[in-house]
Amino acid sequence: MGLVVQKYGGSSVADAEGIKRVAKRIVEAKKNGHQVVVVVSAMGDTTDELIDLAEQVSPMPAGREFDMLLTAGERISMALLAMAIKNLGHEAQSFTGSQAGVITDSVHNKARIIDVTPGRIQQSVDAGNIAIVAGFQGVSQDSKDITTLGRGGSDTTAVALAAALDAEVCEIYTDVDGVFTADPRVVKKARKIDWISFEDMLELASSGSKVLLHRCVEYARRYNIPIHVRSSFSGLKGTWVSNEPQGSEPMEQAIISGVAHDTSEAKVTVVGVPDKPGEAATIFRAIADAEINIDMVVQNVSAAATGLTDISFTLPKTEGRKAIEALEKTRSRVGFDTLRYDDQIAKISLVGAGMKTNPGVTAMFFEALSNAGVNIELISTSEIRISVVTRADDVNEAVRAVHTAFGLDSENDEAVVYGGTGR
Amino acid sequence: MGLVVQKYGGSSVADAEGIKRVAKRIVEAKKNGHQVVVVVSAMGDTTDELIDLAEQVSPMPAGREFDMLLTAGERISMALLAMAIKNLGHEAQSFTGSQAGVITDSVHNKARIIDVTPGRIQQSVDAGNIAIVAGFQGVSQDSKDITTLGRGGSDTTAVALAAALDAEVCEIYTDVDGVFTADPRVVKKARKIDWISFEDMLELASSGSKVLLHRCVEYARRYNIPIHVRSSFSGLKGTWVSNEPQGSEPMEQAIISGVAHDTSEAKVTVVGVPDKPGEAATIFRAIADAEINIDMVVQNVSAAATGLTDISFTLPKTEGRKAIEALEKTRSRVGFDTLRYDDQIAKISLVGAGMKTNPGVTAMFFEALSNAGVNIELISTSEIRISVVTRADDVNEAVRAVHTAFGLDSENDEAVVYGGTGR
Repeated sequence: MGLVVQKYGGSSVADAEGIKRVAKRIVEAKKNGHQVVVVVSAMGDTTDELIDLAEQVSPMPAGREFDMLLTAGERISMALLAMAIKNLGHEAQSFTGSQAGVITDSVHNKARIIDVTPGRIQQSVDAGNIAIVAGFQGVSQDSKDITTLGRGGSDTTAVALAAALDAEVCEIYTDVDGVFTADPRVVKKARKIDWISFEDMLELASSGSKVLLHRCVEYARRYNIPIHVRSSFSGLKGTWVSNEPQGSEPMEQAIISGVAHDTSEAKVTVVGVPDKPGEAATIFRAIADAEINIDMVVQNVSAAATGLTDISFTLPKTEGRKAIEALEKTRSRVGFDTLRYDDQIAKISLVGAGMKTNPGVTAMFFEALSNAGVNIELISTSEIRISVVTRADDVNEAVRAVHTAFGLDSENDEAVVYGGTGR
Repeated sequence: MGLVVQKYGGSSVADAEGIKRVAKRIVEAKKNGHQVVVVVSAMGDTTDELIDLAEQVSPMPAGREFDMLLTAGERISMALLAMAIKNLGHEAQSFTGSQAGVITDSVHNKARIIDVTPGRIQQSVDAGNIAIVAGFQGVSQDSKDITTLGRGGSDTTAVALAAALDAEVCEIYTDVDGVFTADPRVVKKARKIDWISFEDMLELASSGSKVLLHRCVEYARRYNIPIHVRSSFSGLKGTWVSNEPQGSEPMEQAIISGVAHDTSEAKVTVVGVPDKPGEAATIFRAIADAEINIDMVVQNVSAAATGLTDISFTLPKTEGRKAIEALEKTRSRVGFDTLRYDDQIAKISLVGAGMKTNPGVTAMFFEALSNAGVNIELISTSEIRISVVTRADDVNEAVRAVHTAFGLDSENDEAVVYGGTGR
């Protein structure tokens, strides 16, 4: 048996009871003959409490010190977890990101892992210990300062360690049973997906599915590390994310993996842009210079009479104000009429590698939305994804209609287990 | 102007307001032209809360992991303090014990500093930053694991850094105005001491005075680092601890520095020990093998009729059970009658280098106790200290009587400022 990396999120280790429950699960894996490396997040609300403290002493906490502060959270959870494991009669050692060899660039608060040198971790597990590693943190290659990896960083830590240690699997334990064909809070008949390819998972992650972040899946795909997303509360099998189906039972790839939705974006429309070369470039250069990531972009056919066109794009709501300010500064150069800002939108995406070879998918998607009375405002597609923008009010109905139309509904909605504690 | 090391205890940085107040004081020192290195403890009750968490997951938290856990406390306070300073427009960087080069042995929970390599700190202050260092922690030379220095460890960190950085002074900020001639909670007329020698301070520290720990003073004496103990709440001058008086005004060494008391010890009496060579050695070897530190030791003259003697010693109450168990195991070999354990005792000590040249001091001490009706149970002396053991109930009266007899009482008890916040 080889080495497994297990990652436990903050909700799994929210209190002493949670830590003890997780410790038992870790010891089980060890008893089954695995070498076990565990990546752990900060307990429950710890990170929020630390952020709150920082805001009390400084309105704009500095990057380096903010990272130093936040990383205390994992230091607490990992030490407690190691203690709880030792209390079960097994040897455990905890390591900070720095001690575990998680080396990053110097961009505080959202550093990227550039190398993992897990010598101390390998030594520790070779000596029979369970190694506990702080998620979300590393040490910058240049300055030797402590860094944090940003939202979802612990998942990335786990996958990066799994790659560096040549692990059999990276198990991501969370408070849901796996990846579902849609958000079970919206679609009661959503089904847990047994296996999904890296490609489909990447599209779901960038379309609003929150179980795994894009960066983590991207890392796993690059190093071909199978991820097993599963609940830390139940003993159920979760979702395998990998190149090929895992395990003894063959799993067939579905034509459609799932329906994702995202209500975190807003739509900006630049109205009355002169339809000549360079105007769009000016607009998007201004957005890029403000370091704003945009998502969908649509340019209408220009009206022949006026020679003017409209350009729409979506972006995170949190970047809305910054984008409008940046665009206003280009108004005199571009000469557009008005700016419209709309944050009452939702994005609904259908994801599945099967749509490459099933030409009817797009039509069926639009029909389902139409039958549900949902109006489409923007459309964008990739090889294995179709996304539309609708009114935010329509999102739940739209997701359910599409889910049903593509035969994704579970036959038995009792089978869906989602969230909760104590199981 | 040279470099100063300032140390702030947990009560000085108990909340966001405290951190902001301390930040202002640090910035003042910087504005006065000093290079400033700050050592900070964990906020208020943080350490106790972490210990409580540890006890919830494991009845006997392991050394290595316990240290990893506790050091999160300083990581939080130091990052917040750096943020608060930056918010005042000055540059600050925080460093863990490990980053600051505090190298220790591998004895978890009570490691000893064996070297300080403050290259990063020196670099940081040379670049114009205020450097904030986590107190109480280091990194073990052999295992590279995180260690903690035990109770009062932050003071030792500060003195050790001051020595390594060749600082002008190590300022220990606390919630009292300095070192007093007696505990002001017991003696209302206790006076703040302006200057005290390392030697007298060492005796006070080992006799129950809690302002500075013995280990910290010992370190300062070895490297000749003047310590200035003062309040972080008031702007008053505190107490200088050094080889020679500091500052422009000459300060004369008092004959008697102060009266200390200690109610944390218990007395063990081994009754009916055969008075022959080797018996005492057997008894104290058993205590030493149980790793118990004893304090005073007294052996009575043996009764001629029986050839039996009694041996008494004092030790921390927390070690009482262990000592009795260790002694019981020697009973058959030593052949003593009974063991008596008494934890209702107090130790009262008079400290002052002047007693070397003033032969009347011992007599005056005993007379003062006698006049107050206090019975003496044990006596022990050093060159500059006399200690007696009395009933615990008598301690306050005894301390006050001795304080008055040696002319230590302040003329104006309004002058005594002790503890409190907001000043």
